[in-house]
Amino acid sequence: MADHSEVPEAAAVPLAIPSLRWEEPPEGPVVVLLDQTRLPAEEAELVCTDVPALVGAIRTLAVRGAPLLGIAGAYGVALAAARGFDVESAAEALAQARPTAVNLGYGVRRAVAAYRAAVARGAGGADAAAAALAEARAVHAEDAEASARMAEHGHALLKELLPGGGYRILTHCNTGALVSGGEGTALAVALAAHRAGRLRRLWVDETRPLLQGARLTAYEAARAGMAYTVLADGAAGSLFAAGEVDVVLIGADRIAADGAVANKIGSYPLAVLARHHGVPFVVVAPTSTVDPATERGADIEVEQRPGQEVTEFSLPHLPGTGPEAGAGIPVAPLGALAYNPAFDVTPAELVTAIVTEAGVVSPVTRERLAEMCSPSRWGKSRSGNGMMAE
Amino acid sequence: MADHSEVPEAAAVPLAIPSLRWEEPPEGPVVVLLDQTRLPAEEAELVCTDVPALVGAIRTLAVRGAPLLGIAGAYGVALAAARGFDVESAAEALAQARPTAVNLGYGVRRAVAAYRAAVARGAGGADAAAAALAEARAVHAEDAEASARMAEHGHALLKELLPGGGYRILTHCNTGALVSGGEGTALAVALAAHRAGRLRRLWVDETRPLLQGARLTAYEAARAGMAYTVLADGAAGSLFAAGEVDVVLIGADRIAADGAVANKIGSYPLAVLARHHGVPFVVVAPTSTVDPATERGADIEVEQRPGQEVTEFSLPHLPGTGPEAGAGIPVAPLGALAYNPAFDVTPAELVTAIVTEAGVVSPVTRERLAEMCSPSRWGKSRSGNGMMAE
Repeated sequence: MADHSEVPEAAAVPLAIPSLRWEEPPEGPVVVLLDQTRLPAEEAELVCTDVPALVGAIRTLAVRGAPLLGIAGAYGVALAAARGFDVESAAEALAQARPTAVNLGYGVRRAVAAYRAAVARGAGGADAAAAALAEARAVHAEDAEASARMAEHGHALLKELLPGGGYRILTHCNTGALVSGGEGTALAVALAAHRAGRLRRLWVDETRPLLQGARLTAYEAARAGMAYTVLADGAAGSLFAAGEVDVVLIGADRIAADGAVANKIGSYPLAVLARHHGVPFVVVAPTSTVDPATERGADIEVEQRPGQEVTEFSLPHLPGTGPEAGAGIPVAPLGALAYNPAFDVTPAELVTAIVTEAGVVSPVTRERLAEMCSPSRWGKSRSGNGMMAE
Repeated sequence: MADHSEVPEAAAVPLAIPSLRWEEPPEGPVVVLLDQTRLPAEEAELVCTDVPALVGAIRTLAVRGAPLLGIAGAYGVALAAARGFDVESAAEALAQARPTAVNLGYGVRRAVAAYRAAVARGAGGADAAAAALAEARAVHAEDAEASARMAEHGHALLKELLPGGGYRILTHCNTGALVSGGEGTALAVALAAHRAGRLRRLWVDETRPLLQGARLTAYEAARAGMAYTVLADGAAGSLFAAGEVDVVLIGADRIAADGAVANKIGSYPLAVLARHHGVPFVVVAPTSTVDPATERGADIEVEQRPGQEVTEFSLPHLPGTGPEAGAGIPVAPLGALAYNPAFDVTPAELVTAIVTEAGVVSPVTRERLAEMCSPSRWGKSRSGNGMMAE
């Protein structure tokens, strides 16, 4: 817990432990992670002294969430460089740690590019390592900055949509400081409303099968002192019917050029319910989530995850279960098939607005989205990648 | 496993063990239950030799499901009478075992009434006990008969709605032989389609928080050899969007006079999704589920269940957890609030048809529903109770 000065100020969020930080104790540099698989039962740190440890942490979901994986990948490259390991093979191992995590590759590529450029300029090992670290910090700081801007734009949108204040916000999955170098995406907006005294209730979908809502969003909400209530995903319908939801705020894993939004499974039913009840459905995601190469929502390929996530129950602090043990407690009959897509796709016509760091797109059309994401409007370096990762 | 002759033939369902049966071994009469809390991991029998044992089984959900609880209550009275216990206090204890289980009281009242009538006629203890048992068997047989009729009418409706066959049916919660003296309600219809070679796929919502779909419907589907797939409740939206659902079949816990349907939490979102995608949404329930005393859906009072069902995970075969232990493994942060209604209410306009033992109501209107449930049309004795119990 020595050195917090490395973390950008915008990342000073109400987590017990930052989700990820770089430290340089006398023994050598390390990447320190908040082990998300143990939340909320335990706030445990994982100290990674080398890339295989970090790869393991990515694989077991100790570190997760689209933007954070990009940051972890970049720091991983910096760690290999600083400790004198082979940077190219470390980069390869990191990028492959979760093959569908496009943003992981993005972070890795940026740090590797900085390292290679330094080497090409004739820098020595230490200087090249410093260049990789500077780039990782830039990735981190950009994400924190984007997070702050999304919170600002999103909060302004809420004021416009719901002038009465006292918002009852329904959210799904985890989109806060745990997935980000800053305060996140959708949850950052809810947090801004909370700080302004305008949040009446945060409804937290538990988000089966991996329970990111009940475990992680509830953890963040509790730490931030928000008034929150967890519910089974199927109970959201009753809340809408009872008029208890003013707005739905969710993140995105990939946004197609036509404005269709891929997000955690269970998001689309909320969009349909929101439409049925005339409730705004708002997506909060950085412009880097918009993938111009994916023309339409129907073109988004959705990852099918192991059926055991549904047919078995596992928690890391449950003896003999969890990702490490690779086994859970059977819930369904042995041999039961499961349909377990990681994401679903919500068409643009069901999305009231997309909030990005560059502003708000509403109504969501191909043209407005392209304009919002154009480099002239959005000055920061950005990748065309899809940020498709839990 | 001695004497199966007591169970009506229509109840000969593909369970390993009938969900409930009366036996008369030399040691004296008993009520034998399939312990549903241990499914699907174990097929264990509970042999109840007295009413306190049966009350315990009802409280711990070893026996559950609206119609089956009525049958259990009636046999419980017969058991007390046959064993020479005080019938009135046994009836009181049974009726109170689950206060919200209206049908439990219904079964109890029918058996007690038969017992009292016999006593009033001057019958001795053995004859009065025989009268109570005969009434319990009648309750059982009527439910099995109603189940068979619902399966028939429901299957005919499917042929009409989906002339192509090869049905992909989505269901929620558990509505099969485990809740019934026969083959159940919605699942009985799916089973009829399966036997006719017309079922292509049974999509089984896991049904959080208590997982009756993943645990119990999957168990019944597996035993019956149906092609079934379990999914997290939030994944149903993707199935609709992919055109993978031909019809939704669910049961009901109470139907208001206006045709609004109270059923397991998570049913209403399926109705909204079905409407959005133009998929028929069909409710299968006996006419006794229709409660003429409840004017409108909005008048149905929905039971809130303990938040721990959402914030903790418990299974009976998990050491130290389950209903007996009263404690589960925390999933959400300690102190997390949960919104955990047992049921939700689907308005009649989202219901394509209600299938009862007396026929099919479609479109669902107050008038047609009243006509279907009128005594002239439906000859069997029926209660005005609401069958409001998991």
